[in-house]
Formats: sequence, structure tokens, C-alpha cells
Amino acid sequence: MTFPAPLTGVVPPVCTPLTPDREVDVPSLTRLIDHLVDAGVHGLFVLGSTSEVAYLTDAQRGLVVETTVAHVAGRLPVLAGTIDMTTPRVLDHAHTARAAGADAIVVTAPFYTRTHPAEIARHFRLVAARAGLPVFAYDLPDSVHSKLGPELVLELAADGVLAGLKDSSGDLGSFRTVVTGARTRPGVRGFTALTGSEVVVDAALALGADGVVPGLANVDPVGYVRLYELCAAGDWRRARAEQERLCELFGLVGVGDPARMGGSSSALGAFKAALHLRGVIDCPATAEPQVPLSPGEVERVGKYLASAGLL
Amino acid sequence: MTFPAPLTGVVPPVCTPLTPDREVDVPSLTRLIDHLVDAGVHGLFVLGSTSEVAYLTDAQRGLVVETTVAHVAGRLPVLAGTIDMTTPRVLDHAHTARAAGADAIVVTAPFYTRTHPAEIARHFRLVAARAGLPVFAYDLPDSVHSKLGPELVLELAADGVLAGLKDSSGDLGSFRTVVTGARTRPGVRGFTALTGSEVVVDAALALGADGVVPGLANVDPVGYVRLYELCAAGDWRRARAEQERLCELFGLVGVGDPARMGGSSSALGAFKAALHLRGVIDCPATAEPQVPLSPGEVERVGKYLASAGLL
Amino acid sequence: MTFPAPLTGVVPPVCTPLTPDREVDVPSLTRLIDHLVDAGVHGLFVLGSTSEVAYLTDAQRGLVVETTVAHVAGRLPVLAGTIDMTTPRVLDHAHTARAAGADAIVVTAPFYTRTHPAEIARHFRLVAARAGLPVFAYDLPDSVHSKLGPELVLELAADGVLAGLKDSSGDLGSFRTVVTGARTRPGVRGFTALTGSEVVVDAALALGADGVVPGLANVDPVGYVRLYELCAAGDWRRARAEQERLCELFGLVGVGDPARMGGSSSALGAFKAALHLRGVIDCPATAEPQVPLSPGEVERVGKYLASAGLL
Amino acid sequence: MTFPAPLTGVVPPVCTPLTPDREVDVPSLTRLIDHLVDAGVHGLFVLGSTSEVAYLTDAQRGLVVETTVAHVAGRLPVLAGTIDMTTPRVLDHAHTARAAGADAIVVTAPFYTRTHPAEIARHFRLVAARAGLPVFAYDLPDSVHSKLGPELVLELAADGVLAGLKDSSGDLGSFRTVVTGARTRPGVRGFTALTGSEVVVDAALALGADGVVPGLANVDPVGYVRLYELCAAGDWRRARAEQERLCELFGLVGVGDPARMGGSSSALGAFKAALHLRGVIDCPATAEPQVPLSPGEVERVGKYLASAGLL
Repeated sequence: MTFPAPLTGVVPPVCTPLTPDREVDVPSLTRLIDHLVDAGVHGLFVLGSTSEVAYLTDAQRGLVVETTVAHVAGRLPVLAGTIDMTTPRVLDHAHTARAAGADAIVVTAPFYTRTHPAEIARHFRLVAARAGLPVFAYDLPDSVHSKLGPELVLELAADGVLAGLKDSSGDLGSFRTVVTGARTRPGVRGFTALTGSEVVVDAALALGADGVVPGLANVDPVGYVRLYELCAAGDWRRARAEQERLCELFGLVGVGDPARMGGSSSALGAFKAALHLRGVIDCPATAEPQVPLSPGEVERVGKYLASAGLL
Repeated sequence: MTFPAPLTGVVPPVCTPLTPDREVDVPSLTRLIDHLVDAGVHGLFVLGSTSEVAYLTDAQRGLVVETTVAHVAGRLPVLAGTIDMTTPRVLDHAHTARAAGADAIVVTAPFYTRTHPAEIARHFRLVAARAGLPVFAYDLPDSVHSKLGPELVLELAADGVLAGLKDSSGDLGSFRTVVTGARTRPGVRGFTALTGSEVVVDAALALGADGVVPGLANVDPVGYVRLYELCAAGDWRRARAEQERLCELFGLVGVGDPARMGGSSSALGAFKAALHLRGVIDCPATAEPQVPLSPGEVERVGKYLASAGLL
Repeated sequence: MTFPAPLTGVVPPVCTPLTPDREVDVPSLTRLIDHLVDAGVHGLFVLGSTSEVAYLTDAQRGLVVETTVAHVAGRLPVLAGTIDMTTPRVLDHAHTARAAGADAIVVTAPFYTRTHPAEIARHFRLVAARAGLPVFAYDLPDSVHSKLGPELVLELAADGVLAGLKDSSGDLGSFRTVVTGARTRPGVRGFTALTGSEVVVDAALALGADGVVPGLANVDPVGYVRLYELCAAGDWRRARAEQERLCELFGLVGVGDPARMGGSSSALGAFKAALHLRGVIDCPATAEPQVPLSPGEVERVGKYLASAGLL
Repeated sequence: MTFPAPLTGVVPPVCTPLTPDREVDVPSLTRLIDHLVDAGVHGLFVLGSTSEVAYLTDAQRGLVVETTVAHVAGRLPVLAGTIDMTTPRVLDHAHTARAAGADAIVVTAPFYTRTHPAEIARHFRLVAARAGLPVFAYDLPDSVHSKLGPELVLELAADGVLAGLKDSSGDLGSFRTVVTGARTRPGVRGFTALTGSEVVVDAALALGADGVVPGLANVDPVGYVRLYELCAAGDWRRARAEQERLCELFGLVGVGDPARMGGSSSALGAFKAALHLRGVIDCPATAEPQVPLSPGEVERVGKYLASAGLL
């Protein structure tokens, strides 16, 4: 497909269903894709943080993107994360993504290594020159431990290096600088600005974001599509009410006991428990070394779903 | 070989020489290994931070460990880093290392993902249960963004999960707790405590460390072997003088202009420039997206070598 | 005056004009207050970060709040920051603020010391019990190095400990949780949620914030009052345009050369240079050890003002 | 007294005994001073982190330094911390310290504000020019959130700005650079390098430190004086054994339940509980909002003391 420029709408970061022995559960994955496509989402982002990309082996990553591209069959654009530490390793993943038919890749700054702004810029330039696919920058300081400054993003956009940004920094002011700059900066054309937030989607769209990549859209894709459409129609009052409903549902990410597990185990465990309870996937297992939710914690996920009318 | 318990002495983290087009330069790597073995080092650690492991593709990582194991041919123990984000990905690297004949693996806590102490413990337990090789914990908070507490290390040592620790945290007080605990804690036997410091090796050995893993030993392995032997002989006065000489040489890691590059580009670039100037490797290139040293910066590396009598 | 609950509107954090020898310039301060009051602002916040509170001696802090309270003479509520490391020191500042006639105090979590959630809660409870004035929590992780979680804020609000929140965390999602919770949580009444952002004021008001505390309102109070009124009227389209105009003006905080000074020297220097260029204050000096703007940097501030029609 | 250059030996950071209603307990403070002086310590450091300086009001700070100077009566040098956010506030504390007769002040980099290396240097230069007392830099990144680089310290030492360094950074490699540089850098004379560590005192002295400032010396000053003397005599074997004994005693800082309190509440609470159990001070209260130790936690402090032969 011709990649839309900009890409707009709801682009869920797709969970990766696993079997009890932690292999990719292909039938569940295709059911999850149907669940999202049927809800009217506008694109799919596989191999992001919500997909547990950091936990998937290279073989599993390849299987996920191949399965998704094949099942989507061109109906929607498919973006694939190529999350790794540095340029050469990212390029290996980019090669896999391209061979599998992904439409774009999503790339973080280098991590694990100590990074410098000049090295970050060089990284994106080298990846874009060699990947053979449009490149989205993925700004995720909680994981990457550096922030992509809006000036760098706009400079790379103007130079044709970046096709878009997926902003999971939580810093809406900085995101606004990119959004506004993408409209006004000479040389920037068709740039896509996506927010990774679940809870200020209305605000991000109001200030000009093109689309949204909320992990919670795995659980309630219909809700996020509705929210997107209300914003697109300028009905901010009803958009705010829908957003507040989704904020309440989002509370499910906190069901895991912080004395027993980290935020990732809790949030990804809750998303998968919800998909399991809703009958979309067969098994709620998360990858190792994440800690599973207890039965009581899963029960609390169910209550969130019930409150939201999703059970 | 039977893996020594504890492993003692100088165990350099081996640089990975690259060709101008950033492939592993196998002849240079074997010359570098000879340079280290001939100096009398007691083991080799490949695929650590100094080896640019974060920049090497899986194929390159495999080639490095195979080349090293084959060339060393059992004369010394070979430890291999399996640096990756989570358990399943680390296990893939562990499989490669074991197949290539490495004697032990060196494993960090999970990174990129948000981690919790329970998840970190679970990670080491799962890796140790499945890797088929002794496991060294690699404590490197600058890269991993969490610190391995001494209590966790000792608990995992007592349970037979960890064979050793490579401490690059810079926190000598915490390291001392491990060193002393490894001697006194019931159930801990043959545990190896290695410091990654270049500049307080005498202090670490004085408080009971088993060995040292200094990146600078690529450049001056004879100096670190001499330092180790002086410490082993209890000649602390001459050890301090040798250490101070090496501290001065270590200044070469700062030759890179901080306005133009990060600390990794500067330090690894300087190590490789020094090895090139000393005639050990053919090409001083570092992996991308690191920024190369300028000719003037390389010249300053040469001055450090000359001052240290290494040219 | 009876303190409004909630307090709504624009509440600028008032700059502290200094003489060339770094004493509080009282005539300039009263002119600045007039400049703000005449623009229609709804309250004043003295002794916040924008006021250089961290740089003012206790005597200077006392003079600022006394001068302000006397000059305002009950026309508007005056909030006073009591920024210090721990409970006993904050209470000393609270005593001064109360004696001078301030209407409320603004209090951060403890800093410099290592803090624990239980200690942070205890701090706010002790301050509220003893200060004799309504307490606003000041969430400023860049300075305080801990984040006030929305759950803690709402719990303290429900217990009558906190009268409001001034959120300068940049995390709009977390702020929304407080805003929504203040409306729905049993026991919370008249709670004031203020954002410290300059650049997402429209978004914060759209999701339910009561008011805004933008440092840039020193420079363009008329703009922020206009923005507030457009939001209050639900005219989001024109609000966005006004906000984008203010975002562009906000670029002036970056005039200072990052090789020569930090962000505080640049931003506070630019605010004061702008107030000086606009004829509001006599001297643009910032407190020590901040680095002064160069003449060329001041000239760039002037260009920002000219573009915004403020010269 | 003429301030020694360098100052050598054991310089305990003196705890500040409080009454049950959190006023400075002057009789207990003088008994604590006697306890330290009688043990043979070589200087006293009041108003440091161990003194709970961050929790003391200005009046209490003044009382502490006056009481100490009067009671010591010139027998030992007295250093006073002037811990505050910026230059003007530090100078106010310096004025108090000088008026009270302190021999030197101990000054951190600015905190709470965003800092820049140029601003940090300017801060120390301004304080030194105006304080009228020798200035020690206090490197405490856990509290100050910036690290004093060895280059900056040595530059300020060479310019006569700094008389010494109190290093509580935990980074022995960086400390060594200062220690060695203070011996070899042209223009540096009589500079004092003190480590704040409790647990690597032998190592710090072995590499050339002049003295030590261990908080635990409040509890066991005789032990630290003995350790210092063994190191001064070059008896490294017995020094290591004494250091390991003190490391074990240092475990008492961890008695507080981390679910209920922070590290400061636990460590300072344990020091004071120990001093109370040893009969040196009347009341173990710590300042607010720190959380008190439970009776069971105090009992564990007692066990540490008993094991160390201190009860």
C-alpha cells in the first residue's frame, strides 16, 4: 500500500498473545487483529512496548510481523517496532520487517549505551538511509533514558529522515512543539505525529495530533475509535466524557501488587487478562521474567471491564 | 576446561576490532587475543561493554565468541556477555555462547523494560536454570538503570544461581559487602567477585576482590598483570604507584570533544586508536552510530601512550 | 479575604525584580504587580520558582510577600511559596507568610533529604496542621526529585489537608487524575487544581483545571487572561490560536547559550529582560550564581517581544 | 586556631540530639561532643547531613554551631555545613557560622534550581570570596543531584577557592583523581581530601585521603580512630579487619522497615537510637517528617551494638 502521509486515526500497539509455554499464539493473534480491525481502527503497530517486544526473541518478532501483515492483507498500514540498542542491530530488525511486508518501522534512540545528541541524530539518519522503509521515531524516555527533543525531531523531519513520531514521553508541551512545527517548518511534509497516551487523547488531538497509539485500545478499541471520531467532529464535550470513561477503565493497569511486581507486569498482565476475559485470546500469559497476576488481581480486571460495559 | 572457582586475576574485556566497513576483523581480533595472552592475563571476557556488544549484530557476536574460543584453545577461561533486554533474548545469546564453547556467561538485569527486584531475581534464576553455563551477574547501572543490591547477589550466590559478579557500578562499598559476604555467608562457595574499575583496582584487591576486568587492559595488559601481582604479593606501596600510572594513562578516555560525541565514542574510540597505534589491530573504527575521533584527538591518544612508555 | 474555593483563573508566579546589587527592587515589584492586576489576572503567586525563591534570603522573601500583600490590599488572593527542605524550615516560612498577610501557602515535598511516600504525606499533614493557612501542594519533580502521585494528592484533599495543587510536573495525565478525582472523590470539596504549564493551558482547562500559573504571564498577562476567557467560553478554536501565539513567544526562554548557562539562567533572565524592555522593571538582573544574558541574547528577547506585538 | 592544611584524621559529622519536642538538646549535644573528643577524633563537622541539617531551622543551626564552638574551645577544628539552595542563602548561613566561631564551612553545589557547571563554579567562587572562612566543597549527589567533577574541584583548588573536599559521592575513582591531583597539580597547596564513606575508609586512606567523615563515628568513634591509626601506620591487614568490623556494625542503618520509612529515617534513627542506648544522648528523636523507629527496630540496633561490643 502507499503509506498515508500523514497517517491518522487510532493505531493500536498490538499485544502479542502467548501460549502457556510462551510461544507466539498465532490463532489468538489473528483473532486480536480481527477484534481491532472490526472495531474500525486505522492502522496497527506491532512489536512496540505493549507488544512485549523487549521479551520476544528474533524468531518470535519475525513471526508476529509476518502473521500480522499476512492477516491484514493490505487493509490497514502495519508499523513494526525495531527495538534494539544501536544502529546495526536495529537494521537487522528493519530487514526482517521489510521482508515480512511491514509498511513502516518505529525506531527508538540508542539505549544501554551512553548516548549523545549527535549520536542519536546519526543513528536515525543511518537507519533511514538503509532501512528501505519510512521511519517513525519512538520517544519513550522511561525505557530509553533519553528524551527526543522537538528540535531534533523537526530537523530530521525537514531532512526527510523521519516520517513521523510516536510520542510516549508524557510531555504534551514538547509534543505540541513537534505538532505545530510539523505544520509550519519549511521542508516538513506529510509528517505524522502520534501520541502514545491513553489518558489525554482528546487533548493531543485538540492540539493537532494526527493519531493515537493507546495500549488500552487492545481492550476497548471501539471506545478509542469513538473518541477519535468525536474529536475529529469537534465535539469536545462528548469527547471529554468518553475520554474520562476510558481513563477510569485505564485504572486496570494498576491491579498488580507493587510489592510483588513491576509496572510492566501489572499493566501488560492486565491488558492480556482483559483480552482473555473478553474471549479474544486463549491465554493471558506474559513473557518472562514478568510476574503473573494473581487470581484476585485478575478478578479486579474483570470488575473494571464490567464497569465499562465490556463483559 | 573446568571453570575455576573462584576465577582470579586479570580478565580483560576484549575490544572487538572492526574493518573499515564495520565487519568483525578476525585477524586483528586474534592478534589482540595474543597480545593479551602473551601479557599473562588470566581469562578473557568477550561481548562486554568494552567489546561494543551493544553494537554488534547477532551474527557478529557469534563470530567473536567462536573466534576467541578457537584461538584461545582452552589456555584460559572465556566468559561471554549475553547482553539483551530480557530472559528469552538473553537465553538465545546464551545458547550461541554455549554452542561456541564459552566457559561462562555474563548477564545483566533486564533493561529497557521497567524492572522490579522480584523480576530481576526471577530473570537470573531462569537464565541460570536454562543456560547450561555458569552465570556471572553484570552490575552496570549506567547502562541498565538499576543497581544489583549486594543482598540480592549474595542470596542468588547462596542458592547456586550465580557463579560470580562483575561489578561496574563504581560503588566500592556495595562491592565490599558482596566480597565479604561471599566469604562468610553460609552456602556460598567458590564465588568470583570481579571489579570492572580501571582506577581503584588496588583498592578492590585489597578488600578481597578475586580479579579485575579493566577495559584499559586492552591497551596495557602488562601493566594490569603487574598491578595484580603486586597486590597479590601484598606490596601495596608499589601497587599504588603502578595504579597511579595506569590512572594517568586512563585519561585517554577523555580525548573526545564532549560537544561532538558521547563518553562511549570517546572511550572506546581511544582504546581502539591506542591498539591501532601500538600495531595490534588494523583499523581503529568503532561501530555506528558512534562518532569517530578526529586526527587531533588520535594524536592526543598517542601522547598518552608515549607518556606511559607504550609507543 | 475569604479564600476562593476553588480559586480560578490566571495566577501568575510573580518575578522578583532586583536592583543591580541584588536587593529586592520594591518600586519595580509594585509596578510589576500593577502590570499584572491591570491585565485582569485573578490572583498572584509570590515566592515560586519563577520568583527565584531559591535564591532569595529569608529577609528578601519576607519583604516580597509584605510588599505584595500591602500593594494588592485585598483586591486579589496572594499565595506565597514556602520553599524549603523539610517541615520545620517550611513552617518558619509559613509563619512569615501568615504574619505578612498571605492568603495561602504553596508547599513542595521535602527535598535534599531522601524521601519516602510516608514521609511526604506526613510532611503535608504536619504543615497543614500548624501553618494556619490553606496549603497548596507544589508538584515540581525537576526541582524536588520526587513526583506527587495523584492518589496521594486526592487522599490529602479528602482529608482536608490540601486546598489545592499547583502542578508543574509536565504530566498532564497525572494532573487529569487529580482534576477528575477532585470532582468525584467523596470528601473533596472546593479543591483548586492549577497547572504551571505555559504551553498546554488550553488543554489543561479543557480537561477541567481551575486555573493556570504560567511564568510567561509576567511578560504577557493580557494574553493569558484572554486565553483563559476563551477557554471559559468554550471557544476552543480561538483558544488554540492564542495558545499557539503564546507558545511561540515562550521560545524566548531558550535564548541563553547552553554552553554558557543553565535553563534557569536563560528562562528567568529572559523573563526579566522582557519586563525590562517593556518598561515594567528597572533592572533585569537575576540572582547569583545565575549567569546573565549577553547583549545579543537580550536582543533576541526583544525580537520575540516584537513578533508578539509586545514592544 | 590556625586551620590545619591539610586537615587529617577522623572528623565525625556530629548528630544533633533533639528533645522530645524537637528542640536542640544542648546538654546531650555537649555530652556527644565529649564522647567524640575523648575518643581522640581530630575535628568535628556540625550541620552536615548526619546532623539533620536539612531539618533544622536557622535558629537551631545557629545554636548547634555556637554550642559546639564554645564547648570545643579551640581544642579541635570545627567545620560547619551551610547547606542551602543557592549563593545568597549559603552566605547567610556562612555569616552565622563565622560569627559563631566556626573554623571552616562546608558548601554544596546549588540544588533545587537547575544547575550548570558554569553556575556551580561561580557559586563556589562567590561563596569563597565573601564567606571569610575556608570553604570545603561537599559532594553529595544523592541530595544535590549533580556530581562535582574532579576537574572542577582541582581547578577551584588551584585558584585558592577551595580548601578541601568532603566526598560523599561513593565514587572512589573520582575521589582518587582529586587526591592525586591535589598532590601533583601546580598551584594546589594544603588541600584536604576527606571521604564521607563509612565502609571503604581503609581504601580511601590507602590511596591518599587526608581524613574521614563517617556518620557511624558518632556510634563508635574509638573504632574509627583505631582504623585511622592502623592505616596511618601502614598496617593494612589489621586495618582491613577493623574496617570489616565497622562494616558489620554499619548494618544498623538498615533496621528501619522500607515499607514504612525512607533511608534517612532509618539511618539517622539508628544512629540516634544507638547513642541513646549507649547513654550518650537523652532522647533518640529525629526531626520531622522523619518516621521514628519502632521498638522492635530499636531492639535490633541494640543487637548490632552488642555484637560490636559497644553495650
